[in-house]
Amino acid sequence: MNEKTLVKGKLICVALNDTAHLTQLSKSFLKPPHKEPPKQPVLYYKPRNTWCGHKSVIPWEVDVENVARPGMTVGASLGVVIGRKACRVKQENALEYLKGYTIVHDFSLPESSYYRPDIKGKCLDDTAPVGPSIVPVDYIDDYRALEVKIRINGSLKSSFKLRDLHRGPAELISIISYIMTLQPGEVVAVGFPGDKPAVSQGDSIDTTITEIGELSNSIEWRK
Amino acid sequence: MNEKTLVKGKLICVALNDTAHLTQLSKSFLKPPHKEPPKQPVLYYKPRNTWCGHKSVIPWEVDVENVARPGMTVGASLGVVIGRKACRVKQENALEYLKGYTIVHDFSLPESSYYRPDIKGKCLDDTAPVGPSIVPVDYIDDYRALEVKIRINGSLKSSFKLRDLHRGPAELISIISYIMTLQPGEVVAVGFPGDKPAVSQGDSIDTTITEIGELSNSIEWRK
Repeated sequence: MNEKTLVKGKLICVALNDTAHLTQLSKSFLKPPHKEPPKQPVLYYKPRNTWCGHKSVIPWEVDVENVARPGMTVGASLGVVIGRKACRVKQENALEYLKGYTIVHDFSLPESSYYRPDIKGKCLDDTAPVGPSIVPVDYIDDYRALEVKIRINGSLKSSFKLRDLHRGPAELISIISYIMTLQPGEVVAVGFPGDKPAVSQGDSIDTTITEIGELSNSIEWRK
Repeated sequence: MNEKTLVKGKLICVALNDTAHLTQLSKSFLKPPHKEPPKQPVLYYKPRNTWCGHKSVIPWEVDVENVARPGMTVGASLGVVIGRKACRVKQENALEYLKGYTIVHDFSLPESSYYRPDIKGKCLDDTAPVGPSIVPVDYIDDYRALEVKIRINGSLKSSFKLRDLHRGPAELISIISYIMTLQPGEVVAVGFPGDKPAVSQGDSIDTTITEIGELSNSIEWRK
């Protein structure tokens, strides 16, 4: 774990929360094995070894089978930082449990099988930078006005308005808090644009979210 | 998080590592969507909110949809406790990175969809007791001689010889360490018997592993 991280305890990511992406996938959800769209949020973890921060360098290296990281992509999300213990809270009160907002990068490999827990693809070391800082929750009037922009080597690659989240932060915090207690310093990445830009060694990745800041990382070969 | 836990950092579980269970499932793996048996270990997490210890009480409560916990089961595994930082280690050296052995209980709900990350089923509060203590790695001549026995309310419900693990601790630690760095105090549950006994409120669950000890928990209704 990189000491620069501002995550404590848990980093939970919400998948499939871009309304346009869900609509696009809706037909494929009706086929086996799913047969229906997800009714509840689809969640995954980025464990402790993935946590790093603003300006952290993401390693590009070979795996146990001596293969480098083909198809690595980056997603960027608004991160909500928990301010006080949240256990089984109602949606209408959920925002009272937040400390503030930040930015989360998620560097992932393509899923080798979409139908098994995707630990290798999501959990490589130093693939979840969070930062650069925590903006207090009352500085943001309405998260729906925010926009996430990802630039790679200076070129705009992805742009996503948070009004297009299928579920907003309050609904997510409530649902998650019925599954697991959330503690101060834990972070929930509320949703990534469906289209994730490809990255490679040598790239610089800069994500801005209006009023939240800019999170910058780069990727370097590591033997 | 229960303060009684002896886990630090991460608790990683290995699914589908009972050779007899894998053989039994082998035909179904050939069908879509898998089409082939898993080539690499199937891993999942029990996050911080699940960690508790010997004699911890597991809560039985309703979920966000006001449903209690139908079909909860218990699995038991040998837990290996990491002793020093393990990053990309070879199988032949892997045991040098261990501090010792313990016992892991995993209380889980049945998977609502086997084809999506199973966060709700696996990650409820206080569903991963670990303990009662850590037996130093050199006290155990050969893990293959150990046997895991699960008793519910005093009756033997499951018995599993560790020689029937598909992959042993050294191979698992090596493979996992190529995906994610393991740190001292982190625990890997190396494999559960394929057949997991059902549990309900009021039950007492006691697991013994030869030479490792006995881990005891109970389940109680919580409003």
